[in-house]
Amino acid sequence: MNAETLAAGLAADRARVDARLEALFGERGAAVPRLDAAMRHGVLVGGKRLRPVLVYAAGRALGAADDALDAPAMAIELVHAYSLVHDDLPAMDDDDLRRGQPTVHKAYDEATAILAGDALQALAFEVLARSTHPRLAAMLVTLAEAAGRDGMVAGQALDLAAVGGHPDVAALATMHGHKTGALIRAAVRLGGLVAVAETDPRLAALDDYARAIGLAFQIHDDVLDVTGDTATLGKASGADAARDKPTYPSLLGLEGARARAGELVEEAVAALAPLGEGAIPLKALARYMIERDH
Amino acid sequence: MNAETLAAGLAADRARVDARLEALFGERGAAVPRLDAAMRHGVLVGGKRLRPVLVYAAGRALGAADDALDAPAMAIELVHAYSLVHDDLPAMDDDDLRRGQPTVHKAYDEATAILAGDALQALAFEVLARSTHPRLAAMLVTLAEAAGRDGMVAGQALDLAAVGGHPDVAALATMHGHKTGALIRAAVRLGGLVAVAETDPRLAALDDYARAIGLAFQIHDDVLDVTGDTATLGKASGADAARDKPTYPSLLGLEGARARAGELVEEAVAALAPLGEGAIPLKALARYMIERDH
Repeated sequence: MNAETLAAGLAADRARVDARLEALFGERGAAVPRLDAAMRHGVLVGGKRLRPVLVYAAGRALGAADDALDAPAMAIELVHAYSLVHDDLPAMDDDDLRRGQPTVHKAYDEATAILAGDALQALAFEVLARSTHPRLAAMLVTLAEAAGRDGMVAGQALDLAAVGGHPDVAALATMHGHKTGALIRAAVRLGGLVAVAETDPRLAALDDYARAIGLAFQIHDDVLDVTGDTATLGKASGADAARDKPTYPSLLGLEGARARAGELVEEAVAALAPLGEGAIPLKALARYMIERDH
Repeated sequence: MNAETLAAGLAADRARVDARLEALFGERGAAVPRLDAAMRHGVLVGGKRLRPVLVYAAGRALGAADDALDAPAMAIELVHAYSLVHDDLPAMDDDDLRRGQPTVHKAYDEATAILAGDALQALAFEVLARSTHPRLAAMLVTLAEAAGRDGMVAGQALDLAAVGGHPDVAALATMHGHKTGALIRAAVRLGGLVAVAETDPRLAALDDYARAIGLAFQIHDDVLDVTGDTATLGKASGADAARDKPTYPSLLGLEGARARAGELVEEAVAALAPLGEGAIPLKALARYMIERDH
């Protein structure tokens, strides 16, 4: 798959999930307009939609129809969006800028941002529960586990505890494996579960893939924080160093970090061998993880 | 049902759900011990367990087995607990005391309280999704809707917007109908859904009951804020007046508020007519709503 084909596919999937998310907010009147506006701001302003793109690509690789992939694609993005709204809060990372726009607590207020995040999480489960898929229970457990105390929230707690500390590469991988890795793995698994039963060995192959790209994604994020500029990133560059946050470049050097990300992408591609030609877009996505500029 | 029988039943159901919740935290090691401890603090320190008690009573009234009611009972309490942790935050109600103990952000810190609340919400959906009930999808939609932007979170947003304002009785009822009413209705409906299909007319009778007791509960809460003392309540009494929060006693007078709560309880009891003798504990619970001293 060449770069142009990949870019067109990414754009089409982003447009697809954005339209579905937009419809989700447009389909009925808001109980509290300000809350609804803050939720929209948190989820509809920009974003790479990487997790929905992975849901679509993983599902298609195993033969799922696009229509059946919309609900998990929306659900995973809603969880991701809620986590960003809360991570940006003053008591957490205290960020003013996200996706090139004011963060939700800057555009609205802190209480509204807390509530908007809470409601986005509930909405994620609601969207998935309404999808009435035969493997709904497994999909909901996958999402809830990835989002919660053993997944994403644990990662954010580990991240906050690590600021100013001196973790080694293994501790950093554990933190990122929870903070961003859990949701990326859930995205890939949700797509797979739309197509096949939990016992299908191809889900294990997809999970090996997802684990590797999740870490590669994070290493590349750390690299971009050093090499990127604020305008392209849509958030402050150099923020990790300013906060004394441990990063892969700080532990491995910039070239060491790039090399590690490259190895992980090759591992991810190799893991897809059992899936055959249907996995070509997933392979292109793996490479995109470390080639993107934001 | 006399007061002693009711009290014994309440105590037994509280002990039952507490044991299940305790087991939920005890059954595996914590990914992040501090986060886990904060979650435990949020859910296991005290609490009336009113919503789980309603799940059990509503389910039994329609013939459900206790074992099948444990998961929704836990799930609804986890959502309630997360909402208290977030409502107490400095950016929200800024409360130091809850259930006679320091609030989670006082006992830990603000970031940990935000994350603990987030993880408690995810855990609620996880517990319910794991229960593999045949009407799981309907149960999850019930919980998610009640928790989210058209339910509890909307109520909290309306509540924050109302501070210092001058809503009338109808606006106050709308706010409370979302803030506390939605979750009480969900508790009763979840219990009912364990026993019967969504189309069973007894679910509508239960919903009329739940709507009335939800409002009676809140009116009585406002009354207790005026007449109770901090030690019995486990939270600061007089807090509503100190914050210039609109309340039923402030709009209807203390006796007017008590009378309205009494009417609602009679409406709730009347709504249960189609359920026969199985509804006796639900009737006792309705009266308990306005007789409790905390």
